[in-house]
Amino acid sequence: MPSPEHHADYTAFADTMTKSEIYEQLLDAVAALVDNQPNWVANCANTASLLYHAFHSMGGPAQGVNWAGFYVLNKRHAAESPQQLILGPFMGKVACQTIDFGRGVCGIAAQTRETQCVANVNEFPGHIACDGDTKSEIVVPILLADGCCVGVIDIDCTQLACFDGEDVASLNKLAQILSRACDWSALL
Amino acid sequence: MPSPEHHADYTAFADTMTKSEIYEQLLDAVAALVDNQPNWVANCANTASLLYHAFHSMGGPAQGVNWAGFYVLNKRHAAESPQQLILGPFMGKVACQTIDFGRGVCGIAAQTRETQCVANVNEFPGHIACDGDTKSEIVVPILLADGCCVGVIDIDCTQLACFDGEDVASLNKLAQILSRACDWSALL
Repeated sequence: MPSPEHHADYTAFADTMTKSEIYEQLLDAVAALVDNQPNWVANCANTASLLYHAFHSMGGPAQGVNWAGFYVLNKRHAAESPQQLILGPFMGKVACQTIDFGRGVCGIAAQTRETQCVANVNEFPGHIACDGDTKSEIVVPILLADGCCVGVIDIDCTQLACFDGEDVASLNKLAQILSRACDWSALL
Repeated sequence: MPSPEHHADYTAFADTMTKSEIYEQLLDAVAALVDNQPNWVANCANTASLLYHAFHSMGGPAQGVNWAGFYVLNKRHAAESPQQLILGPFMGKVACQTIDFGRGVCGIAAQTRETQCVANVNEFPGHIACDGDTKSEIVVPILLADGCCVGVIDIDCTQLACFDGEDVASLNKLAQILSRACDWSALL
């Protein structure tokens, strides 16, 4: 897409777009926004906004997406076991501030370094409910080249089974863009 | 307010509440969330969510609030003149990543260390339009005890003259809570 006149226009996804076209525009927009900008907070803040607006443009269960954002490695607790995720930028209602590695969907994704695509969070062992309305969730780890998990992309939905293989593939592409673009040594 | 069952419930403001009651609940919620938590990213992320939901619960022009969040001091550019603000956590559409001190409503608030309450942004000299729909704006500096401006609270609205003296007073109380609660030495 060409650079829009206003930054806010990046969040405009045409009604006629398919899910794959929306993801293509989202990934292009993120790549443009993070170009030459290593600040992970600014990059994740704008990406959370793009994700939230993108899902709400998809129609179907994705319109029930009620939270889109990031948890990142809490370096203040880096020497402790288990390690801890701490809340990063997001769009949605107030969320849990910290999550231990291994706890809940986010904590399992961070610990295993594998995407978690959960059709029904109430059937996920140890699910942490930040919002009782959430029914399904996808969490994608952001991995450095050495395998270190510096954070996760977390999307929640009020509808069951909102996320599919296309979400897994596209959000992993997004995680790779953010992994490379941001200076993750600057985590707090 | 008592601690809610789910974190998301902090964003529930009753329909019957006045603006001053909404601000009172917001300030109590922020104080509870930041208690013993120095991470400015997590604290500002949850505060942006609370602000966005609070304004949308107020009725009147505040329902037109289209952006609520933070710009913070960009320490990577701390040795340069002018200093620079960089995007922090927010709720709303994609936003400008960096703003020089002295430029636009945010930059003037950071440079002068004084709240800017602007009834019509199109009449503000040097206004930076991240979103062409924005009509009015309030920006409150977050000041340390030594007077250093570490960031600003920024609220935009699609309606003219959305903000008044009560917003100025209450958002300054919020800035003081965040100034004291967060470890601002951890800015990136």
